[in-house]
Amino acid sequence: MAYVVFMIVVFIEVVWVWRIGLIGFGNVGQGFIRLLASKADFLENKFGFRFSVVAISDPVKGNAYDPGGLDLSEIVSHLDKYGDIKKMEVEKDFNSMDVVRNFDLDIVVEATPTNIESGEPGLSHIRGALDAGRHVVTSNKGPIALAYRELSDLARRRGVFLRFEGTVMSGTPVISMGMELLSLCELKGVYGILNGTTNYILTRMEEGLTYDDALREAQTLGYAEADPTMDVDAWDPAIKIVILANVLMDADLRIEDVERTGIRGISRDDVMAAVGRGKRIKLIAYSYMEDGRVYAGVGPKELDASEPIASVMGVTNAITFKTDVLGDITVVGPGAGRIETGYALLNDILYIHRHT
Amino acid sequence: MAYVVFMIVVFIEVVWVWRIGLIGFGNVGQGFIRLLASKADFLENKFGFRFSVVAISDPVKGNAYDPGGLDLSEIVSHLDKYGDIKKMEVEKDFNSMDVVRNFDLDIVVEATPTNIESGEPGLSHIRGALDAGRHVVTSNKGPIALAYRELSDLARRRGVFLRFEGTVMSGTPVISMGMELLSLCELKGVYGILNGTTNYILTRMEEGLTYDDALREAQTLGYAEADPTMDVDAWDPAIKIVILANVLMDADLRIEDVERTGIRGISRDDVMAAVGRGKRIKLIAYSYMEDGRVYAGVGPKELDASEPIASVMGVTNAITFKTDVLGDITVVGPGAGRIETGYALLNDILYIHRHT
Repeated sequence: MAYVVFMIVVFIEVVWVWRIGLIGFGNVGQGFIRLLASKADFLENKFGFRFSVVAISDPVKGNAYDPGGLDLSEIVSHLDKYGDIKKMEVEKDFNSMDVVRNFDLDIVVEATPTNIESGEPGLSHIRGALDAGRHVVTSNKGPIALAYRELSDLARRRGVFLRFEGTVMSGTPVISMGMELLSLCELKGVYGILNGTTNYILTRMEEGLTYDDALREAQTLGYAEADPTMDVDAWDPAIKIVILANVLMDADLRIEDVERTGIRGISRDDVMAAVGRGKRIKLIAYSYMEDGRVYAGVGPKELDASEPIASVMGVTNAITFKTDVLGDITVVGPGAGRIETGYALLNDILYIHRHT
Repeated sequence: MAYVVFMIVVFIEVVWVWRIGLIGFGNVGQGFIRLLASKADFLENKFGFRFSVVAISDPVKGNAYDPGGLDLSEIVSHLDKYGDIKKMEVEKDFNSMDVVRNFDLDIVVEATPTNIESGEPGLSHIRGALDAGRHVVTSNKGPIALAYRELSDLARRRGVFLRFEGTVMSGTPVISMGMELLSLCELKGVYGILNGTTNYILTRMEEGLTYDDALREAQTLGYAEADPTMDVDAWDPAIKIVILANVLMDADLRIEDVERTGIRGISRDDVMAAVGRGKRIKLIAYSYMEDGRVYAGVGPKELDASEPIASVMGVTNAITFKTDVLGDITVVGPGAGRIETGYALLNDILYIHRHT
């Protein structure tokens, strides 16, 4: 006689799934979603990181909301076909403040364009999301440059993370380097090439182009805007050095505090004369401590060719941390790019995953 | 009538104090203790990190054990006066294996000299300490190059950390950069200048010295040993590239697997001829993936002067990570030094503090 024994074993596994909402679906937001889609398996296998993108909000590219999670491959195929997600058949009748406050989310990704005057709409998104107890990761320079102290205090009070690696040098992890890996050092200063467009123009001028031709080429290649003011008048690197000074050197600078000179006044002759002296003109953003006060500036500087950052050409960026214990530490890497900035956002999310 | 009310309020605060034992009290161990002493208040105020060094063990410099915590300022003053701690009036009758297994400790700092054949005595110290459930931080290249898989598996099974930032580029945080900040990238390869002594010699040869004169100068300055084999025959960078390949690219290489050429065969004429071609000879350690296999080597290479690491001169080191998402990320910083390597050990300890 045979006994047949039935055993029913029920495994109950509680798996944490990060619920993500994305505000801003331009280049950076799209780069983030593409990267997330391509790295999903890798993220789960290597880090046990599981996620669900439940909302995307953009006034131009379209809205999409599904509390059960949006289908990323569908989103990517809409982007490939139409350049937007307006035709996706999902809930669309909501606005960015729903993502900030009303939807059931853990992390808000803020990727709207930088506004250096008011920081809006990013500032309200970030403030609202932190206040509602959500972690925030952002690539938006405006709110961090204008209101870092307020926002980081709010995050601390609410017990959530505010991460912003993508605001300086895109995915090149210089903010994390300064905040985490070099946090045992006293930082005496930071300086570097924080704007790829102007570095590209200066590189091409060294190769023989006039300023005007180099600028036009940068515009054709999509490095410079039709109105190149943000880059060539050094607003962009000024914002970034404010972020670095305030975050890493505990300063409380405003953009107006930055002594700022752009590259409009630089001629091919200037560039060539420097090369003739064994030097190289670079647009350098810098911040340093003197008598307990932190100063910051941006301007064209003649660097000795032997300096590590003097050989940084084209759109590549670089930063040197001047430290007490380790002397100079320099990091060279990409300074922009949709996928590269998407990487910064994803890396910040992974940080939150590892530290909660 | 007046009432006098007595209130007795008792605050009981449980403060976690990290109990640290140090094995190896040569340059690196001393640099670590000096840094720890100078940063103690900073560590407590900024990170809430409190510690007690309960044991130091070194067969030459002396032993010291106090379960209540050694006085770091007394240790530093003994080092300043005598160069060792033999005259300190504390318990001295123990050996390194007591630090590994018997004393009441949380973290063992292993800073004995590198032995590339057996890894000993460091390997037994690290294996024993992990097995006993202690966190380990080390600057000792031997055990990590020879037994990374075994040791990291053991650490995982025991639920403790094994950290070794100081094995490559001293305090320049390249291991942390690769393992944490770039962990979302697929690493296609790494290469760089991982030995300061040979880079110093090549730099001086470019400035006109012969190989022999440059080597002698490096020896006088304390960069090169009396027997310079480890550096000039490229054993040191070979060990480091094995560590990087095994740790960051999931390889399982032995030192014998590294195709290795040193700089003994390089003449001043070779160096000058390269300069004449707008290039520069550097001793490059490299590792790359091909058909799913990881290869590694070290040898003199002619770099284009425009490469970021080509301008790295003197004893400075540099590494370039070749990634899928971010392209090339380069880090330049010190490659050696007692305080710099001590920084690596302390940074690793802070990592453990933050992640437990």
